[in-house]
Amino acid sequence: MTTSTFLQPSETALLPFVSVENMMRLVNTTGAAVFMGELAQYIEDDFKRWPEFDKTPRVASHSRDGVIELMPTADAENYGFKYVNGHPKNQREGYQTVTAFGVLSSVANGYPILLTEMTVLTALRTAATSALVGKYLAPKNAEVMAMIGNGAQCEFQAVAFREMCGINRLRLFDIDPAATRKAARNLAAQGFEIVTCASGEEATEGAQVITTCTADKQNATVLTDNMVGAGVHINAIGGDCPGKTELHRDILMRSKIFVEYPEQTRIEGEIQQLTADHPVTELWQVMTGAAAGRQDDRQITLFDSVGFAIEDFSALRFVYSNVRNGAFCEKLDMLADPDDPRDLFGMLERAKSAPPAGIENMAV
Amino acid sequence: MTTSTFLQPSETALLPFVSVENMMRLVNTTGAAVFMGELAQYIEDDFKRWPEFDKTPRVASHSRDGVIELMPTADAENYGFKYVNGHPKNQREGYQTVTAFGVLSSVANGYPILLTEMTVLTALRTAATSALVGKYLAPKNAEVMAMIGNGAQCEFQAVAFREMCGINRLRLFDIDPAATRKAARNLAAQGFEIVTCASGEEATEGAQVITTCTADKQNATVLTDNMVGAGVHINAIGGDCPGKTELHRDILMRSKIFVEYPEQTRIEGEIQQLTADHPVTELWQVMTGAAAGRQDDRQITLFDSVGFAIEDFSALRFVYSNVRNGAFCEKLDMLADPDDPRDLFGMLERAKSAPPAGIENMAV
Repeated sequence: MTTSTFLQPSETALLPFVSVENMMRLVNTTGAAVFMGELAQYIEDDFKRWPEFDKTPRVASHSRDGVIELMPTADAENYGFKYVNGHPKNQREGYQTVTAFGVLSSVANGYPILLTEMTVLTALRTAATSALVGKYLAPKNAEVMAMIGNGAQCEFQAVAFREMCGINRLRLFDIDPAATRKAARNLAAQGFEIVTCASGEEATEGAQVITTCTADKQNATVLTDNMVGAGVHINAIGGDCPGKTELHRDILMRSKIFVEYPEQTRIEGEIQQLTADHPVTELWQVMTGAAAGRQDDRQITLFDSVGFAIEDFSALRFVYSNVRNGAFCEKLDMLADPDDPRDLFGMLERAKSAPPAGIENMAV
Repeated sequence: MTTSTFLQPSETALLPFVSVENMMRLVNTTGAAVFMGELAQYIEDDFKRWPEFDKTPRVASHSRDGVIELMPTADAENYGFKYVNGHPKNQREGYQTVTAFGVLSSVANGYPILLTEMTVLTALRTAATSALVGKYLAPKNAEVMAMIGNGAQCEFQAVAFREMCGINRLRLFDIDPAATRKAARNLAAQGFEIVTCASGEEATEGAQVITTCTADKQNATVLTDNMVGAGVHINAIGGDCPGKTELHRDILMRSKIFVEYPEQTRIEGEIQQLTADHPVTELWQVMTGAAAGRQDDRQITLFDSVGFAIEDFSALRFVYSNVRNGAFCEKLDMLADPDDPRDLFGMLERAKSAPPAGIENMAV
């Protein structure tokens, strides 16, 4: 963006913006694995101070083909929200199933301080959260993870679980073999030992961790009861909105269930299949030590992941910490900033003496 | 923004963005009065199809110094939301009391199609809505408007009321004389006949329309009962959140009250002073003819304005119609768009072969 000199917005009015290209550059500068490890630390720090947050279930607008959601949260210093859509049919039409962007603001004056793409960032924070939870709940010395559903989230999960939990062997299955080939190609290049499987049953054989991450919006049974042996940790990602689940109810009845925010998970998660008073454990309490995590080697632990606003808040904080010095971002003229804050109309009038359009357009 | 050739995002991934500078240029190209008149037509069209919208009270995050709100709504084709803050103390520290931005999206695939500044646009849509309502409710041949509160919204209200209701004489009062001087200077330059007043009482003398638009967050009585004569239309703008009202309760008891969305106005508007079953008339029903507006020359009509998401939706639609051909906007690389939508990880990996940072930075 080029702005004419005498309309130059002040620093106050310029908002740091992280484009997709800059986000990829930021991630690749440290590497996705280290990036997710550092991001997980931010998430863990925020989970440990859970009561400090202003929390609300996300605000969803459902339509025939998908959902658009706003996910706000705030602490005393910052307010953050994410815009995210979920449209399972998009993928068949060449669009992303999930796209997202987010904003971090100052609570003190309400001004946004960061606008960032979050399609890539959401993939990273979802995997970072799963692996962080895995660090607390997965069986010790786990090496093998089954991955059912090999879409856009799959590789991020694998890389995060290796970084934080030591997983290095993967058993992949997807109802679309092309998805499995894509994931296997990408993950082999990352040095994983990979077995591609012909069924979900085959994928779960010998796995200590089972990740389900499928896209179809239906009450599916990606996992049936017979596929889940004693001591396994289930990382259930895909069941994340009303009418979209992946696990047979019998598995839930055998598992110790861990959730982010019960008020939201009971609506959106696997536990929408259970009664509203079915016991669940809040992850933040596991992290502070107030509640027990895995209690023995034979217990089945289940992370009923739906994705909560605080994880996005942590991701926004983390990105902001990386762009404060001006790196990896552009500056957007998004906030009107008249010399006299009450003279918005005068600012508009004075803009009439600006040079004709075209100067900006040349730089676009 | 310059992006390197082999990372050039596709058209799908580029989001039109209207900066503050481009918004001012767009408004000044047609003139603020005509812009608000055209915008009011969009608002009226949307109010007339009110039942088609997915409506919800805004999602507010309150803090000691202010509030940050998200205001979403959708019809079958588009989803829109606005981010807006309200921090009364900002003005004293050189910041805007209200800043805002908004996004319009496609319901079909969830992709954003417009990002725009809305600080200037909100000022325009608020005034356009008031004048549109004035067109329905103000006494015939009204010429004189009292304006109590001469802050950032004042001039926009005056210009919109002249455009749509024929108001050309203004009586201004603000507890801060500097605010009145600012408004008088700006509005004299627009050709209004102006009387600056020493009190609210003086301002209301002979006025057929009374606009209240003050910023302090308290239960104030900017208007007391004796100041409101028969037949007046009150355009009450400033009482718009819990604990912030401008009118004495007795005035409400004598007025026929019109609101945007009762579910929100009962929480935020002047009528938070009344019982939850106090009768109000929904403006969309006045516009469709389903409900009566002003019923006689002596009736006091009151627009208890709080600002509703559909007005922002209309404003987003209107701006989008003006930038579809590429004018008045830049294109932001905000939406990740891998060749294979399931291969987000592969896109990230391939970005490693991008040229070093710095090319973009030079163009910022």
